[in-house]
Amino acid sequence: MSDSSSATVTAALLVIGDEILSGRTKDKNIGYIAEYLTALGIDLREVRVVPDVAEEIVAAVKALRAKADYLFTTGGIGPTHDDITADCVAEAVGVGISLDERAVAMLRERFPNPADLNESRLRMARIPHGATLVDNPISRAPGFMIENVIVMAGVPSIMQAMLDDVAPKLRTGRKMLSVSVDTGGLPEGAYGTALAAVQKANPDVMIGSYPNFDGQRFRNQIVVRGRDADVLEAGRAAVEAMLQQLHAEKNEHDSKNA
Amino acid sequence: MSDSSSATVTAALLVIGDEILSGRTKDKNIGYIAEYLTALGIDLREVRVVPDVAEEIVAAVKALRAKADYLFTTGGIGPTHDDITADCVAEAVGVGISLDERAVAMLRERFPNPADLNESRLRMARIPHGATLVDNPISRAPGFMIENVIVMAGVPSIMQAMLDDVAPKLRTGRKMLSVSVDTGGLPEGAYGTALAAVQKANPDVMIGSYPNFDGQRFRNQIVVRGRDADVLEAGRAAVEAMLQQLHAEKNEHDSKNA
Repeated sequence: MSDSSSATVTAALLVIGDEILSGRTKDKNIGYIAEYLTALGIDLREVRVVPDVAEEIVAAVKALRAKADYLFTTGGIGPTHDDITADCVAEAVGVGISLDERAVAMLRERFPNPADLNESRLRMARIPHGATLVDNPISRAPGFMIENVIVMAGVPSIMQAMLDDVAPKLRTGRKMLSVSVDTGGLPEGAYGTALAAVQKANPDVMIGSYPNFDGQRFRNQIVVRGRDADVLEAGRAAVEAMLQQLHAEKNEHDSKNA
Repeated sequence: MSDSSSATVTAALLVIGDEILSGRTKDKNIGYIAEYLTALGIDLREVRVVPDVAEEIVAAVKALRAKADYLFTTGGIGPTHDDITADCVAEAVGVGISLDERAVAMLRERFPNPADLNESRLRMARIPHGATLVDNPISRAPGFMIENVIVMAGVPSIMQAMLDDVAPKLRTGRKMLSVSVDTGGLPEGAYGTALAAVQKANPDVMIGSYPNFDGQRFRNQIVVRGRDADVLEAGRAAVEAMLQQLHAEKNEHDSKNA
């Protein structure tokens, strides 16, 4: 894993599967991959979820791999007819696809009896030409990386193992650091204008405000993000000072009206 | 809610927010909206997650609202500087945006003291020209619908209330029905080829196979989907018959080798 100093490395994620769009399966991969890549020093810039439709998958692979340094995909690499990701990625990248002897060897470890390594299971050994394989320690059928596209399983535990396998091979950038400041009960509307001024005065950090509603009241977090620890700290201090002043004004106002 | 007989009604969803892409916040809206729309008779065709960057939001709104009958958005309609969804949607649709007196009146219910209805909170009453408002019974600041774009909050409980408000006004199609068949322990590789044949013989249903890995073994579900109950039942019966035959062959094979 090379830390290429100040360079930013970006990624996109394509989640493939009718079952996510129908709501039958609740995706668990987007949040996991987002957090994982952030920790690695790769900025996730866009996520798309598309159905098991070849033209849609091919179009999304082409669009997203052009927009980011890496494109990760999840889903659609199993042995059944609706698993069409490998073929779509081959088409999008513009290479051929056929049975890969390295992948067949991996499947043989799981299915030593030749009768069990049937036509359906062999579909999982169809790999685009020129790809490197991504190890699947759980059920052996590999993922793969071709050019800047990394193809992984949809089953979360297998996807996670594949991500661990491929991560050390990726180029990474300077990590995005972040710090959260609780607003101590102050609502967004009370600090919105002041926070905009803090953002303007600290253009090298990104400041976001995130309300959380627990059914009774909002608990807000202000999140400051940036790649430089000193700049981040200056941004955090400015947010804290802004909140302190608003709390002081509020206390003064409350005591006057007591 | 009009059931326009055989017509298919489609939707796309745009999730807006840096916090989802950084992994800090785990999205809870995609799965909820997917399930909700399916139950309503609206097919969710694509989801995108983009950052709080105006050009990205505008481009995604334009692309997705052209691809589907409805585009839903979540996030970015609060009172702080990073809430830019309303302005971006106005730009994407090509209309102006300004303070909306109906929205101001709603905010006045929550903030009866004029001093509390400050510049920051009034941002939440900026509504694209020509939009209808979507009620927010929780914190009053409304969502809105302009042409085929429905703009909702990112906080799940508020988004859900907004969806309930807007749903009766939407055109809906014939509902997608689905039925799941447990494969009784048969792995995907054992039925993949036979299932492809069942799909080919039943082209009016969509058949998917969904493995679930519990850390020990796969438990698979075959899901048959279609809009016609009789056609769906025929597809389900074909899947059951296929599985029954495979189980019988397996038992025969196992007893021969016992």
